[in-house]
This record gives sequence, C-alpha cells and structure tokens, in this order.
Amino acid sequence: MEIIRIPRIMRETSRRLLVKGRTVGFVPTMGSLHQGHMFLFKTAREENDIVVASIFVNPIQFGPGEDFDNYPRDLETDVKKLEAAGVDILFAPEAPSMYPEGFSTSVSVKGLSDRLCGAFRPGHFDGVATVVCKLFSLVLPTRSYFGQKDYQQSQIIRRMIRDLDLGIECIVCSTVRESDGLAMSSRNRYLSQTERHAAAVIFQSLQAAAAMIRKGAGPSDVSAHVRTQIESEPLVTEVQYAGVYDPDTLEARTVAARASLVAAAVKIGNTRLIDNIIVELKDK
Amino acid sequence: MEIIRIPRIMRETSRRLLVKGRTVGFVPTMGSLHQGHMFLFKTAREENDIVVASIFVNPIQFGPGEDFDNYPRDLETDVKKLEAAGVDILFAPEAPSMYPEGFSTSVSVKGLSDRLCGAFRPGHFDGVATVVCKLFSLVLPTRSYFGQKDYQQSQIIRRMIRDLDLGIECIVCSTVRESDGLAMSSRNRYLSQTERHAAAVIFQSLQAAAAMIRKGAGPSDVSAHVRTQIESEPLVTEVQYAGVYDPDTLEARTVAARASLVAAAVKIGNTRLIDNIIVELKDK
Repeated sequence: MEIIRIPRIMRETSRRLLVKGRTVGFVPTMGSLHQGHMFLFKTAREENDIVVASIFVNPIQFGPGEDFDNYPRDLETDVKKLEAAGVDILFAPEAPSMYPEGFSTSVSVKGLSDRLCGAFRPGHFDGVATVVCKLFSLVLPTRSYFGQKDYQQSQIIRRMIRDLDLGIECIVCSTVRESDGLAMSSRNRYLSQTERHAAAVIFQSLQAAAAMIRKGAGPSDVSAHVRTQIESEPLVTEVQYAGVYDPDTLEARTVAARASLVAAAVKIGNTRLIDNIIVELKDK
Repeated sequence: MEIIRIPRIMRETSRRLLVKGRTVGFVPTMGSLHQGHMFLFKTAREENDIVVASIFVNPIQFGPGEDFDNYPRDLETDVKKLEAAGVDILFAPEAPSMYPEGFSTSVSVKGLSDRLCGAFRPGHFDGVATVVCKLFSLVLPTRSYFGQKDYQQSQIIRRMIRDLDLGIECIVCSTVRESDGLAMSSRNRYLSQTERHAAAVIFQSLQAAAAMIRKGAGPSDVSAHVRTQIESEPLVTEVQYAGVYDPDTLEARTVAARASLVAAAVKIGNTRLIDNIIVELKDK
C-alpha cells in the first residue's frame, strides 16, 4: 500500500490514475478503523480498479468542547487493517497542509445541515462538507463510500455532489453492528463496560420503533416511545433527538409515509452516540 | 465551435479531454462579450490545447434590485465573437440545469468576500464562488482566466482554488480600456452619452492616485483625493468606495507599502461601475 502524506502528491497521483482510465473508489475516514470501515473498503474493493482511503481527523468539524484532542488515533494499527483490506493508497495528510495559514473557504449545504445532529453541533457539517470537497478534489474518485450510521452526513455529501456537479457516485453502506445491535463507532471505545452494556438501548429503541411503524402507529406516538425507551436507561445522560424523520429532508415526520428515518443521538455518560434505521412500508 | 447546453454533456466532454491529456483553458463569462473578454480568449488560446468559454448569467450572484433581468444577453453575437477568437467549446447552460429544485449548497470565501464590493452586494461573492466552483467541476480546466477589472473576484477565486485544492491555475489578465481609460464592461452599455463621457473620471482618479503614491503621499491623503475627484463629477450619484487597499487582504491601507490596490465603485446615474489599478513602488 502506498502512503501519501502531501496533498500535492495525492493530486498528482489521482490525475495519473484518471488519465489511465482507472476507476477509483474512495473511503474518507478519521481513522481508528472498525468493522464498519472494513465493510466500506470491501465494497469499494469489489467495485473499483483502485481503492483510496483517507485518514484525517478533521479539526474544523469539531466544535469547542468536543473530543478533537481525545479522538482515538492509531495510524500503525490502521495501516495494517488497510493493507489487509486490499486498499491501494492511504492518504493521511497533516492538518497544516490541509488548512494552511489564510485558509478561508467553506462549503455549506443549507437546510440539511441544520437539522438533527446539526442542531447540536453548529458548524459541524460545514466542516464535513468542506473537508470532503477538498478530499474529492485531491482524490478525484469515481465512487465514494460512506456508512449509513452517519446518515445525515451521507445525505449532505450526496446533495453537495449533485449541487456542485462533482460527478462522483456516493454509495451508502449498511451499518455494521456489535452482536447486541450497537452500531460500530470509533467512539464506542470511550464507553466503560457498564456504559457499553447500556448503549444497546439505542438500537433496541429503533427496532421497537420499526415494529410500531409496521403495525400502523403514527410518527408522534413512535417518536415518544423511542425517547421514553432510551430515557428509561439510567446511564443515559441526554437524549439530543430521537424520533421519526423524513429520510430526504430530515424534518420530523408528522404524518405516516412509505419511508421513515428513525434516528437518535444520545449521550451515555460523556460519550455521544448516534444511530438510525430506515423503515420502508410495503405498498398496500 | 461546439456549443454545449447540458451540464452532463460538458462533464463528459471535459473528462474525455482530460483522459487524452489535453490542457484546457477556461474563460467563464456572463456573455455580452467585449474586448476585455477577447483578451482573455486570446491569452487562453495561446496557452492551452483547448479553449472553453462559458456564458451564464448567474442568478445567484445578483441581489434583489440589481440588474439580473436587464443584464444584456445576445448569444448570437457572442457566438460569432467566440468563433472569431478560436474558442473550441462554448458551455451555455440554462439556469434550471445549474440550479435544479432542492439546490442548497454554497461556497463561501470568508473575509475577502465581505470587503469592497462585498459590503455593497451582500451574498454576491458567495454566488460567484459557488457558480465558479460548479463550472470548474464541469469543465475541469488546467487554467482559468479572469479580468483584473474584477480584481476582488479574481482574488476570491484564487483563494477558493487554493483552499479547496482544485489544482487549477488562475490567470488574471490586464483590464482592457476605452481610449479615454474607461474599463471595458458589459454594463457600459447602460450609460447615456453624457454619462459615458462622465465615467472617464473613474480611471482619471486612479491615475492621479498612482501619481500621488509614487510621489510619496500617504494612503489616507490619496484615498481622500480619489473620492473628491470622483465626487467632483456631477453625474456621479454615489461613491460606494474609493481609495487605497491592501492587494492581498483588500483592507484599507493605513500606512504606505510597496504594493497598493487603488480601487473604486461608483454609480453614474443608475449604473454601477468598478475599476482598479495596482501601484507598485520600486525598491528604494
């Protein structure tokens, strides 16, 4: 696997691949790789000539008081996992080369960025859109791969690709889960053993919501139930949002529809976790 | 000359050129082409295998009450001029294909966009950065060409290219002027004959400023003189800004420096005109 640390070298490499007509599958990550990432690499490997992964803990998508400093970083272990996954190129830039002095451009997807996680992490999705736009410019991928756990992020990236005519396919891969249903996340390692156990309530509440929706319950009843179920777990310190949303606009659902996003953002102790599922009703 | 009206076709065409290894010079315009544009085409023609021009009166860079509806449009005449200039491809999309329903992404260059024209045209430079970012994605140029008359715009595009790692060279070509010094602009055709005559005061004031700077006058004296000279013209209805600025940050100069931007934005009747020059002092 080739490891590239300099943006200019990444650009030159990707232009060469483009001229050769190679398809490039790109998986942007913040490292601390888990099985969710491995599934993205596997999918990218199957669908493209070349697989590029990036590891970059992007400072501008963390707010003040968030976990930028503590975010787990372990490049050596990550490199082994990437090699095992058959990734061809790792792009792992340093922050000063991505945000040199005088950096002042931002990419913003209005509307989608303000809802759900955006309401609790102001500026977060502008930071995500900006860095992904930069990474796309440098990697010039044919296809990009994102995990469904970060559903809102994937919708924002899709919108940005369409709006800025980037011509990149955006593939959203299923969430990979622990055996008790907890969505894989680099932040799961912040959890103590009892917190880890308690965190299973999130997916359980989403599953309960899916069952209610299939039985015909309305969105407000379902949303109330999701929140109550999560709050019943004593180690939950905050429910930032929990309920039924429109999968396209991310707005709270008020009337039943064919497809629903059931999503929640929860703090367990000091650790913020998110999860979601899409519930589709069969045509009657 | 090939005329392309559909963004998807433009993208496919530019990807083919890239794979063939062709260099592409790109001149984005709003049409109503004048000799300033012709100089951009000529320069692009000399430096690239393929020259692409775009004509698109970009709705999102016009504010309420500005001249979007009245902006001169004459595609037929423009096509003749482009052919005479040896342009290979004209990209002339329709607004709905550039901004389809649900469009919600914006590219913003902070700081640079708020000063000078930005202070009088809120949102204007976000509209410019967004459309140029889109056009760059579609055309994938090696080099892009802008006129110095729109100095602030060229600085913002340069910053955007650097910040988003677009890997495009940004070439700023000298302002082309009428015989009395008035900078060529599509908006000059809004002027009545007497207004057209009066408009020469703008460049005269910039030249006077250059002479003062070379004689050692300080920025505040020079700025005051530029404004007074322009205001002495009775047909001037508003001086939005006029003075000496830092060519990099666009902030007002308070102490003398080696390089100065002397710039003004002026209304003559209802027509808003801008102009600027860079004054560089020789090392002493």
